[in-house]
Amino acid sequence: MDTKRLETIGNKKLTRRDALKLAGVGGLGLLVGAGGMGALMQPKPSAANLAGSAESNSADGIVPFYGKHQAGIITPMQDFICMGAFDLTATSLDDVRKLFQSWTEASARLTAGKSVGDESGHSLLPPVDTGESMGLGAMRMTITFGLGPSFFDERFGLASKRPAPLVDLPHFNSDDIRKEWTGGDVVVQVCANDPQVAFHALRNLARIGRGKAVLRWVQDGFQRTSAADPKGSTPRNLLGFKDGTANPNVSDEKTADEIVWAQSSDDPAWMAGGSYMVMRRIRMRIEVWDRSTLADQESTFGRHRESGAPLGKTDEFDDLELDRKDSKGKPVIPATSHVALAHMDGKVKILRRGYSYSSGMDLKTGQLDAGLLFVCFNRDPRKQFIPMQQKLAAADQLNEYISHVGSGIFACLPGASEGGYIGDTLF
Amino acid sequence: MDTKRLETIGNKKLTRRDALKLAGVGGLGLLVGAGGMGALMQPKPSAANLAGSAESNSADGIVPFYGKHQAGIITPMQDFICMGAFDLTATSLDDVRKLFQSWTEASARLTAGKSVGDESGHSLLPPVDTGESMGLGAMRMTITFGLGPSFFDERFGLASKRPAPLVDLPHFNSDDIRKEWTGGDVVVQVCANDPQVAFHALRNLARIGRGKAVLRWVQDGFQRTSAADPKGSTPRNLLGFKDGTANPNVSDEKTADEIVWAQSSDDPAWMAGGSYMVMRRIRMRIEVWDRSTLADQESTFGRHRESGAPLGKTDEFDDLELDRKDSKGKPVIPATSHVALAHMDGKVKILRRGYSYSSGMDLKTGQLDAGLLFVCFNRDPRKQFIPMQQKLAAADQLNEYISHVGSGIFACLPGASEGGYIGDTLF
Repeated sequence: MDTKRLETIGNKKLTRRDALKLAGVGGLGLLVGAGGMGALMQPKPSAANLAGSAESNSADGIVPFYGKHQAGIITPMQDFICMGAFDLTATSLDDVRKLFQSWTEASARLTAGKSVGDESGHSLLPPVDTGESMGLGAMRMTITFGLGPSFFDERFGLASKRPAPLVDLPHFNSDDIRKEWTGGDVVVQVCANDPQVAFHALRNLARIGRGKAVLRWVQDGFQRTSAADPKGSTPRNLLGFKDGTANPNVSDEKTADEIVWAQSSDDPAWMAGGSYMVMRRIRMRIEVWDRSTLADQESTFGRHRESGAPLGKTDEFDDLELDRKDSKGKPVIPATSHVALAHMDGKVKILRRGYSYSSGMDLKTGQLDAGLLFVCFNRDPRKQFIPMQQKLAAADQLNEYISHVGSGIFACLPGASEGGYIGDTLF
Repeated sequence: MDTKRLETIGNKKLTRRDALKLAGVGGLGLLVGAGGMGALMQPKPSAANLAGSAESNSADGIVPFYGKHQAGIITPMQDFICMGAFDLTATSLDDVRKLFQSWTEASARLTAGKSVGDESGHSLLPPVDTGESMGLGAMRMTITFGLGPSFFDERFGLASKRPAPLVDLPHFNSDDIRKEWTGGDVVVQVCANDPQVAFHALRNLARIGRGKAVLRWVQDGFQRTSAADPKGSTPRNLLGFKDGTANPNVSDEKTADEIVWAQSSDDPAWMAGGSYMVMRRIRMRIEVWDRSTLADQESTFGRHRESGAPLGKTDEFDDLELDRKDSKGKPVIPATSHVALAHMDGKVKILRRGYSYSSGMDLKTGQLDAGLLFVCFNRDPRKQFIPMQQKLAAADQLNEYISHVGSGIFACLPGASEGGYIGDTLF
């Protein structure tokens, strides 16, 4: 456990014991953050997100759609993601409003394990729901909506409403961004403990959007399933290393408010309770990585591969203690290792919520097109994601093995109350 | 239950009661065949495949690798597939033999939930195993190897050994085959109840093959997870219809011998206990399908969408009774429906073992690249898959909504005994 990290959370000194109390019923597992929780031992998310109906902790349960915040942000991670970005073809704000009203209604049903709408009963009409999730459960599905910078162009008269934190992402060193994996007026993140359930939701939302929105890109992702890891250990990325160990403990409301949620004191007010998502499609150079030595790999991450412990330590949750030196006076954890750079002196944190992806072969290179669908949430990307990524892009040893090929930044709207709709604070 | 179909199995009359007895401990579920079984209620496969160690029926259990037959053929379907085809760069039969020996050894370890090999302990060497499945279980993984027609060209001196049933597939009406999804000297089918475990296996086999084999294509696929459907109903394809209802009951050895396994009386003898796989990457025109009426959809399949029952009937396993006519004298199940054509008068059967796939967007068309990774096994494709597909390609109403974009035919070798290796009857 990284006591030093916890001490800085919420600008309040926390002892290790406080940290454990704070974790509550979830036990130590909770401290792992969203990335480290298996669905079978998932804690209840922040009470603020639980308005509406009762939360189920089982792998096939229901995560309430309505609440102060959108679900799928501080919600403990599900096993699968199906993420899509849409370009709007609607030409009026009124049509956009109707689209979000329809999407809200459909999402509330889908996340409750229902079909997207009641069937008409007329066999001479297309079915209301495409049917492939019939008989399957809710599978802890969450559906999360965000608006990209392009949403705030001249089309809908909302240019003046564009949130200042929703900047265009700068070019980072070592970026190799492809248009086909980038941007979008609207992002829809669907996460669930079943890939067919998640695909079904995105597909039906696309169908509802016909005439108003077209899909721009779609990316599926996975973690190990809950069944493969019932203890809910920190998942491993496709480089074989545990990923998510240092995620902040957002089950603590104060931490979540500081790191994740836009506040009413922030500008704009209509984003209060929302959050900013950054998506990066990070291709891993699997074949190159697989030829590097274990020492190189561990030096690159700054952690031991098997245990996930910081270099020179034995437990995954041991403190990093970046100032440790070896007998020759060199840092035990190299300053250009991923973990040392991402630590940002403990002052800058983001909530990571990424998934591995495997998309067959890259026909151009004849290598695997696999890697990380990096997703993170932060209260202000100008102060969190961007400076962190600038530091990583400049010096991270990991850059030798990865390539950012897709990118997106989205203002994830506040949650909606029953009767309201996602976006109602803006539209 | 399709009594008519069962009656023809094994050239022996079977009553409905016989069929139920034959299903044994698996109950009715068994009769659904490979396509309809959830891992949580999976029956033991044929005893012939169980040489070696004890079979576990749990979703995370071990399916023995060694046996008379390769696992992954009549094995009840797992939730995920990761399939790859390799082109051999090896230039001698001796190198091919060594490759299959290494692959066999690695596969036996991987399917037992172990790493691909013992780590050397030297941090200045690359790790033996890529590590991303550390701590995860065996997850019922199976790894199945097959040889394509191109394997039997002049390179390895085995042209005279090419099995007669391993024909080049003919061009079928409505084929739209793309080179990048077609062929390969060797196919490796990895199936498991976890996508990360499956990916890990294919990746490590590719790594072992370095210098001898390069990946040609890779396709992932999924079904609903066992957790989403603990009752193990017949899975639905991405068109929303149940898929696999009419699969033969290959837990019956006689049926499996007749439909799936090459026999010692067949030519060549070294394939006895093996089977022929046909792979078709079938793109679904999701957006077009979703605009068709329920009546059109049901007429296309010849079954009701919700229940899976033959048109005009109420239970999924009711007899098709293709000779039924409506009040106007027209067949209740159209002669050009998928089910009517695939029925082949009950005389020709294949074992289907397909998975849904979702591979993002097709950049050329802006539509979803999703569909069915069709996989089937048969004893002689000349008598089974090919005539069936010719009939379907010529007249199936479903052709309006699908497109075959990838294709492969492979001789899946007999199983290996411990101490032997996959391919040892040939090499």
